[in-house]
Order: sequence, then C-alpha cells, then structure tokens
Amino acid sequence: MIKALLQDFLPIIEQRLEASLKHADTKFDSVYKAMEYSLLSGGKRLRPFILNEFYKACGKNDDGALNFAAALEMIHTYSLIHDDLPAMDNDDFRRGRPSCHKAFGEDIALLAGDGLLTLAFETAAKTEGISADKVLKAIIVLSTCAGNDGMIGGQVIDLVSEGTNPELSTVKEMYIKKTGALIAAAAEIGTILAGGTEKQVLAAKDYALNLGIAFQIQDDILDKIGDSALLGKPVGSDAKNEKSTYVSITGLEKAKSDVEEYTKKAVLALETFGKAGKNLKDLAEYLINRSF
Amino acid sequence: MIKALLQDFLPIIEQRLEASLKHADTKFDSVYKAMEYSLLSGGKRLRPFILNEFYKACGKNDDGALNFAAALEMIHTYSLIHDDLPAMDNDDFRRGRPSCHKAFGEDIALLAGDGLLTLAFETAAKTEGISADKVLKAIIVLSTCAGNDGMIGGQVIDLVSEGTNPELSTVKEMYIKKTGALIAAAAEIGTILAGGTEKQVLAAKDYALNLGIAFQIQDDILDKIGDSALLGKPVGSDAKNEKSTYVSITGLEKAKSDVEEYTKKAVLALETFGKAGKNLKDLAEYLINRSF
Repeated sequence: MIKALLQDFLPIIEQRLEASLKHADTKFDSVYKAMEYSLLSGGKRLRPFILNEFYKACGKNDDGALNFAAALEMIHTYSLIHDDLPAMDNDDFRRGRPSCHKAFGEDIALLAGDGLLTLAFETAAKTEGISADKVLKAIIVLSTCAGNDGMIGGQVIDLVSEGTNPELSTVKEMYIKKTGALIAAAAEIGTILAGGTEKQVLAAKDYALNLGIAFQIQDDILDKIGDSALLGKPVGSDAKNEKSTYVSITGLEKAKSDVEEYTKKAVLALETFGKAGKNLKDLAEYLINRSF
Repeated sequence: MIKALLQDFLPIIEQRLEASLKHADTKFDSVYKAMEYSLLSGGKRLRPFILNEFYKACGKNDDGALNFAAALEMIHTYSLIHDDLPAMDNDDFRRGRPSCHKAFGEDIALLAGDGLLTLAFETAAKTEGISADKVLKAIIVLSTCAGNDGMIGGQVIDLVSEGTNPELSTVKEMYIKKTGALIAAAAEIGTILAGGTEKQVLAAKDYALNLGIAFQIQDDILDKIGDSALLGKPVGSDAKNEKSTYVSITGLEKAKSDVEEYTKKAVLALETFGKAGKNLKDLAEYLINRSF
C-alpha cells in the first residue's frame, strides 16, 4: 500500500522537478546538464513525499505544496553533490552512477550544487495559490533546516569528527542535523503550507526528527550488512573512510532495537493527525524494514 | 560627498551582517568562523549600498531593506569563496588576506560558501515591516539573479571560455551575468521593497546592468595597470590565468572610453528618479575614477 503510494507520487514530483529545471537554453548550459544529471537520477523522493503527505494530512488535496517538495529535493541533491567532492567525502559513485564531479568535472559540479541550492529558493518562492505569509514562513523553515543549525551543521560535525572516536551523543547530534533537519523541514513545511495548527507543526517536527534518526541508523546498518547493488554504493564505505557510525559504537543489535524505538516515537507523534496520519505511519514502518 | 556616504553606510551594514551571523554557539562552529572570516573582511559593500540607495530613492527612510542588503553581500561573499577554491580559480588571496580555503581548508570553505548562500535566504525572508508579497517578490529576484540565468551563469561562461579566445559579445554576456546580475538584484530589490513603480524597477535594473559592465571593465583595467596593494590581489592575475578580458580584446583606450559610455547610460537611466537619484549618479561617476 505505502509502496504503491510512494510509486504513484514519483511521476508527480519528477514532473515538477523537470518543470522547475527548464530554464536555460544557451550554449553555456553545462551546469544545467549537471544539475539535471544529479536531480533526475531516480532518487526515492522521500522528503518531497513526506512534505506532501503532511500537507494532505492537514486536509489539503491540491498540488500547492509541490514547489516546496521540489525545492527540498534540490537541496538534498545539492548536498549530495558537494558531499561527494574530493574536498569532502571523495565519492566516485552515487545512486549507482558516477558522481556529479566524475561526470562533469569538479568546477561544474561545484556550480551545479550552488545552482540547485539557489534554484530551490526560487522554486519555493514561486509557490502559487498559498498566501505570501505562509510561503515566507516556510522559506524560513527551509533555510534554517538547510543551514548551519541544520544540515550544514551536521556536515561540519561529520567532518570534524572524522578520525576521532566521537561519543554516541555526537553521532546522534550529527544524524539529527545532517539527515533529520531536512526531513523535519519537509514535515513542518507541509503542515505550515496547509495552515496546520501550532500543535500539528510541532507534532510533524517530532515525527520527522525521530524518523530521521531511525532512517540514518538503518542506513548504517545497511552499510554494514547490506547489498551493494541495492544501495548504489560500495558496502562498507563508512568503514573504508574510517567513519564512526552509530552501529560501530553501539553494535548491530542495539542499533536495530534503537531503530525500532525511534520509529515508535515517530509514529506516536502522529496521534494529533488522527486517521489522516495513516500514510505517514505506514511510511515509518516501511522504512524500518527497508533494504535500500 | 559620495565617499562619505559610502563610509557612513559601512557601520550600518556591518552591524546587520554581524547580527545575521550570530547564530551558533557550539563546539562545531568552524564553519561559522570561516563565514565570519570572509563576510566581515572589509569589503566595499557596494551592492548593499546600491540596494539601500534605491530604497531611499523611492522615498523610504527606514532600515527595512537592510536584511536584503546583508543577504546580497552574503551571496557575493559565497561566490568569492567558491570562486577561489582550487577546483575553480585557485586563488590564495582575497582582499589582501589568505582566501577562505587557505585559512580553513577546502572542506570548511566549501561549506562556508553553502552556509552563506543559505543564510542569505533566511536573512532576506526574515525582513520585518514590509509586506510578505513584496518580500517574496524580492526573494524571487534575489534567487533569479544569483542563479543559472544570473551570477552562476556568468561563472559558467567564465569557466567554459578559459583558454579559448571568446568574442567580445561573450565577455560582455559574462560581465552582465557574473557582475551585473547581483548589482541589478540590488537595484531591483531596493525599488521593489520600497514599493516603487514598474517603470522605476526597470530603470533601476537598466542603471545597474550598465554600471555592472562599467565596473567589471574598470576591474580589468585596474588588473592591467593597477596597484597590487590597493586591489588586494596580485596585479596581472587575469593574464597569469590566461583569461581573456575586455581589455585584452579591445585594448586599453577603447576599454576606458567604454567604461565612460556605460557609466553615462547608467546615469541616464536614473532620470525617472529625479533628484532622489543624485547619490546613485555620484556613485557611478565615483566608480569610474576609482583605483581600488
């Protein structure tokens, strides 16, 4: 059921992503090609889906949240492009294909990331049919969650911790910021755009932060035991890079039970949405059992 | 007179930039230090000044445009940080000091640039005392001018043209996008935030695009004949990098007369602002004679 919903959402978000990218038609369009290469490379589109589901959970049934959904995926994608650069993680592959800088060169990949981050805000600001007040509030959430106190902050912790033996609390803070922040943005923004109550916005954030940690620990588990072809990157790449992960600190069994724990907390937070939160509950339970 | 006005504006914008940066207080704040290092390094703050002057030229006398002025300077600064990276221009110095990646490492410099771009939109969206409609319109201008059809597009032309012999029209297109777009954003945004007429917005843009080209040609001229200490970078760095510049194509004398020509056009565009455009006229004429 939830798998079908995720699948049904794909063409909707892909179309919006493509439409948002269709801008340039010049001889200097290499950066567009690089943006397109990375953005339209078959991601799971989980963040856009979550954003749109919270929008629907607040009673909306139109496509008003899709520009923000696209914006969020652009920000996610730019962070992957920059993360893969030699100055950062130096990853040659992403989603089973050469990473952006391997395909287009470091300079164009750098600009493609910058371009996607910039286009994200343009796309979000061009939201139609929702009051400027709400859109502006959502842009503040988007920029805050993507910035130093959110995703970028998580990347900094990741960088600074490399080669050290970070405590579990540090790894958890990194997960909350690096992965949780953008998922929290999805949940909050969907709720804000739909005109949800303050209580709903807080519940959405609570769901997302717990789901984000669960998702990231599951990622570690999959990196440890997973299937390379399914993950689209070499298994054990974290170990290769000598990165401390949740799993390497707590061990596999504790990590697995913590994924369940955080997933339960996420589901509990959905209570305030009543029956309308069903899809989001299913999503959390689906992700816990994933192998991708 | 205009020199004094520029000088008087400095503490105002510096204070707003500092205030916008004051966010984090964690042990993982290296990226904040890098952002601060590059943002508060004594730039001329021309773009913020122009933005604020157009706001005033439309009859406003409050500090309502300062968040966007700060945002614009953040975007300008992020572009310099990323431009200086080894994957791009590989410049070791900026404004007479080690460039960001020389001081903080490539990884942190990359994230500092990303952080400034993200913070720019957060800061802009947090504008107070101006209607959400106008702020949203200004955010669209900001992102468009900073994106692929603006500044980033100019950087791509710069990259792609390197080592080739571009035509003058290509160099001009690069200047319009790489330098002109952000100056145009300043002019447009100041006018939009102040509630200027459509005619005024167009005139502001016209002024800025001509000023931007004049400014960039003057930059080439200074690179050719200027004083290293005043410029804060080695003289002849364009020649070193084998870049075709306006001057290398047209020769020095033609370049000088073109600077005058574009400056005249910029000043002409100000007519619609009447006496209120005086400072912006003075600015254009001041910049033409600059040696910095």
